[in-house]
Amino acid sequence: MGEITKAACIGGGVIGAGWAARLLMNGIDVALSDPSPAAGEFVEAALANARAAWADLVDVPLPREGRLTLAASIGEAVAGAGLIVESVPERLDIKQAVYAEVEAAVTPEAIIASSTSGIMPSDLQAKMAHPQRLVVAHPFNPVYLLPLVEIVGGEKTAQATVDAAMAFYAGLGMKPLLVRKEIEAFIADRLLEAVWRESLWLVKDGVATTQDIDDAIRYGFGLRWAQMGLFETYRIAGGDGGMRHFLAQFGPCLSWPWTKLMDVPDLDDALIETIAGQSDAQSGQHSIRELMRLRDGNLVAILKALKERGHGAGETVGAYERGLAAKS
Amino acid sequence: MGEITKAACIGGGVIGAGWAARLLMNGIDVALSDPSPAAGEFVEAALANARAAWADLVDVPLPREGRLTLAASIGEAVAGAGLIVESVPERLDIKQAVYAEVEAAVTPEAIIASSTSGIMPSDLQAKMAHPQRLVVAHPFNPVYLLPLVEIVGGEKTAQATVDAAMAFYAGLGMKPLLVRKEIEAFIADRLLEAVWRESLWLVKDGVATTQDIDDAIRYGFGLRWAQMGLFETYRIAGGDGGMRHFLAQFGPCLSWPWTKLMDVPDLDDALIETIAGQSDAQSGQHSIRELMRLRDGNLVAILKALKERGHGAGETVGAYERGLAAKS
Repeated sequence: MGEITKAACIGGGVIGAGWAARLLMNGIDVALSDPSPAAGEFVEAALANARAAWADLVDVPLPREGRLTLAASIGEAVAGAGLIVESVPERLDIKQAVYAEVEAAVTPEAIIASSTSGIMPSDLQAKMAHPQRLVVAHPFNPVYLLPLVEIVGGEKTAQATVDAAMAFYAGLGMKPLLVRKEIEAFIADRLLEAVWRESLWLVKDGVATTQDIDDAIRYGFGLRWAQMGLFETYRIAGGDGGMRHFLAQFGPCLSWPWTKLMDVPDLDDALIETIAGQSDAQSGQHSIRELMRLRDGNLVAILKALKERGHGAGETVGAYERGLAAKS
Repeated sequence: MGEITKAACIGGGVIGAGWAARLLMNGIDVALSDPSPAAGEFVEAALANARAAWADLVDVPLPREGRLTLAASIGEAVAGAGLIVESVPERLDIKQAVYAEVEAAVTPEAIIASSTSGIMPSDLQAKMAHPQRLVVAHPFNPVYLLPLVEIVGGEKTAQATVDAAMAFYAGLGMKPLLVRKEIEAFIADRLLEAVWRESLWLVKDGVATTQDIDDAIRYGFGLRWAQMGLFETYRIAGGDGGMRHFLAQFGPCLSWPWTKLMDVPDLDDALIETIAGQSDAQSGQHSIRELMRLRDGNLVAILKALKERGHGAGETVGAYERGLAAKS
């Protein structure tokens, strides 16, 4: 899998187009299969964003871009591809139908990587002829820029497939994180889901608006998490006693009645309107395209700042630069 | 309160010392009252970190530092102080006893700001002689550097107290966030608690180590949250359909069995040892002091990067610089 020169992207929504852009930026040809006539344009837009971001982010010459082709069918897209990136809607039956179509057209060696954010790989591969080639590679928006990709194998996934995926995505300038046990939603989305649920309660109960919650994050712990994460930050909070002292102090709070533990808020029309209306008030002055540029510009600025310090996500960028320099 | 020239810090732990450092950096004299003989040294260490951070962060001359004095008692510390910053342990009875001692020694005009991260101001002020002066000003580590401070008034808090607090903390280069309804744990800690609880499950179930979880955050959504927060990021994920489209897509996931909703993990000795041991493996090569320098250096780098783009936390730094320039 280290010698992938052609990939197929099945599904070209926000995630699929982001994958296509990242692959193309790394000199890999991409054949795209998506029922929407706008999919090609969508990938080109993501690619334009990716070009701008990476030109600013790295100080070494970027690879010659891969070639994008639009395929008329899944079978046509996957022909000759060493990697098939599946980013279709989050329904098991739809994904399994795609795999059947893919397997009918490729050799058993081609790897199929699902972008699912929640479905377990053992379920995804249950009906496959060659399930050993199926791996979950779960990325994060914007896929062409954020380093994290969660790698999860199922019961029938070959170790060689997992190993190849870990190496391949690292080569794309990403941070592959091996998920040790197969669970629904893996690691990051379990955390995101917890925050999302709590945020819905805060909005529903009128404690905070979407703007308040975003500000509570981006002026506060978001700045900590961009570079250290949760546990290392708390280790510091424990002082010289470190994590043990922190746990001794903080542990009891777990039984405090702080969060809406027992229940999931009903996302009814009223709550949807509240959230959407607040979001309009907060961000409606920018188009989505403007927000994307703003986000990407900020991400590049942060990654550059961390690159110079060789820490966290900056390490990924530094390693990528060294890899490119070694190749050129 | 806009003319505070002397403050008293009651409690000089991580939070209290951080407050003292931020106040001193802004030219405000601080009298510290803490039973520990090491408290003065602790504040000096925080102040040294704050000096290094702010000298790097802003391009305008910093104010002349305030003077730190160590008081032998609460009464001595608060004499002549316009602001009393209470950062004692999170127990209502301890805090109420402190307020009684404070009120016996100051005029009714002096404002008492509690650093509590969870106790409601109405409870804090219940036994006060002049409860209108009590406000929660909940900061985040490192207090001398992170902009966010949650401002929460209780039933008896005067609007003038809340208004004065909002203005005062903005003047310190912070982002005061007014919490619209009084709830336990306010906004940020409700979100943090949700992530923390979920993280404990992931570690307990052997799905992820502390290092895995930190990496899932700092290579992924932590980078997004440092500059946009949750809702604006998701608005982008909704594409041109914005937040309404995102909610339509994502909403159903709320009923998926992803998170350990119903239960709080038992933080028993085994789990404490697992977490502390993993944290040692992850970060034990650095002393806490080294980790603090690493964290602060990264935060400064990120804030500088955002300052140049005038976005999010960068706006706070820009406003602070303009404020300093106008004064000098």
